[in-house]
Amino acid sequence: MGAMSALPGLDDLATYRADKGRLGRALEALPGDFPRPEGAFPAPYGVVGLGEGWWAAELLRPRFPDTLAPGTTFVLAGGYGLGRLAGLLAAARETSRRVVVLGFGPEAEVPVPSSPLTPYRYLRYVLEATGEAELGAEVDRALSRERERLAPHQKSPENPAKLLAWGLLERIPLWVTGPRHPFLAQALQQVFARIAKSLSIAPPPAALEFFITALEARHEQGDPLVGVVAGDDEEVRLAREVLATRVDFLEELAPPEAQGPVPEALAYWYRLAWAAYYLALLYRQDPGDHQVLARLREAAE
Amino acid sequence: MGAMSALPGLDDLATYRADKGRLGRALEALPGDFPRPEGAFPAPYGVVGLGEGWWAAELLRPRFPDTLAPGTTFVLAGGYGLGRLAGLLAAARETSRRVVVLGFGPEAEVPVPSSPLTPYRYLRYVLEATGEAELGAEVDRALSRERERLAPHQKSPENPAKLLAWGLLERIPLWVTGPRHPFLAQALQQVFARIAKSLSIAPPPAALEFFITALEARHEQGDPLVGVVAGDDEEVRLAREVLATRVDFLEELAPPEAQGPVPEALAYWYRLAWAAYYLALLYRQDPGDHQVLARLREAAE
Repeated sequence: MGAMSALPGLDDLATYRADKGRLGRALEALPGDFPRPEGAFPAPYGVVGLGEGWWAAELLRPRFPDTLAPGTTFVLAGGYGLGRLAGLLAAARETSRRVVVLGFGPEAEVPVPSSPLTPYRYLRYVLEATGEAELGAEVDRALSRERERLAPHQKSPENPAKLLAWGLLERIPLWVTGPRHPFLAQALQQVFARIAKSLSIAPPPAALEFFITALEARHEQGDPLVGVVAGDDEEVRLAREVLATRVDFLEELAPPEAQGPVPEALAYWYRLAWAAYYLALLYRQDPGDHQVLARLREAAE
Repeated sequence: MGAMSALPGLDDLATYRADKGRLGRALEALPGDFPRPEGAFPAPYGVVGLGEGWWAAELLRPRFPDTLAPGTTFVLAGGYGLGRLAGLLAAARETSRRVVVLGFGPEAEVPVPSSPLTPYRYLRYVLEATGEAELGAEVDRALSRERERLAPHQKSPENPAKLLAWGLLERIPLWVTGPRHPFLAQALQQVFARIAKSLSIAPPPAALEFFITALEARHEQGDPLVGVVAGDDEEVRLAREVLATRVDFLEELAPPEAQGPVPEALAYWYRLAWAAYYLALLYRQDPGDHQVLARLREAAE
């Protein structure tokens, strides 16, 4: 990597030409951009997620503990079912009065085109369809507040996502989250890969034991690690203490203005999606992934 | 890192002096080394895992879908409950006729001292206590077969774990597993950290999309990546194809001689525990982690 001056400027319009698939527009339009459910759906509800749909299903799990339910089962299918979808649909159709398939494969009744941003869309559809519109509205408010500070028109010094992108440049993020957000680290790992086209590390479930042992043997990693910290429960505080002497530095994410764990998690995710977007531009990569995934679409057909 | 000749020899007895906590002995003794349940436990059964206990709980989940059950709830507690254990125990005692706490904290009725090898011990205790002794015996047979080829008395050219350790030296493993073993990648990430004291990468649930995007931006990582491949279902085959051009090389793990997904998963995990053990010795690290975790024990008290 050359001198800093050789990197694209994030406040320079020309930089955004690398965004060939216009992911920046999709990010800006995201709060409120989801397919609207039509009609009524018989309760009780079940939710199952495959591929891209996995995180939305986990976010909904505390509300809908069952995967298949006698009323309506929502199948958040992504598009690379690889044979698993067929068996799942057969089981769902036997169990449920109504089965709604969302995704981009041929079985999808509600189209959700492949995108790094689909977790929001899957989640919002199901919230709307299951009488949880108020929670959905709080998610949208949280994302709208984030957008004000994160979109490209906000210049670098006042834009936390642009600053974060600079902090993550040429480093490997290590996601530090707590039990309040059990799947957030993996969701951040996913969105960071799909937009910034870069590796990051989500710890396994016993995260403290991992953080304290995994960095013992090799004090000179090729790429400096940066701990990205979201939340402040006791496990996060302990992890921060453990990592302070073990990583290059810690990026503390400011708590989002959001009520409740689901809106909070989505706000963190949305902020990291923006940071990944700016980081892709710094790497002179297209932040979209339609071209990159073409090979997978061919292989999985 | 100096020349290869400067590295410890894995067929040289002196090398094993670095194993201060005698983890090698514990590894060799592992098949059959677990606390035996006493008496009878009323059905139906529930299982919940915290900290070190997480993987055993996930392995048992298909048999015991409930966390808390009216009969007996087994709490695989690890030892760093950080306040979560108290609430969980209160709920379990309200729901269940019998609550059995395993772990190394003060609440543990069945002592399971902290160790990288506890997933096996938690799993075996619960299998024995719930009438699944035959499955437990198959786990033990699979591990005993692995041990014949992996223990230190097997010299390097015939010892797959020693060979694997050389292949992983100064590299970052990327764990490639399929839907047959949904939590294996994270279990390998954990045991590799705790024994080899090194970082590795487990992909998020939509692993194919991750593998294909995460390596796009930066073709020169500091540390070479090695894809470690376990299993051969369609997702693993696709991931292998995607990674072939994106990582330094692929290590294909030979399928273990084991019947069923749980014995298979334990056999893969045990083989990687041995490989991590040899890798720790190559790094001149104590393969045990009692000293390393002392700081966490203090902080969590």
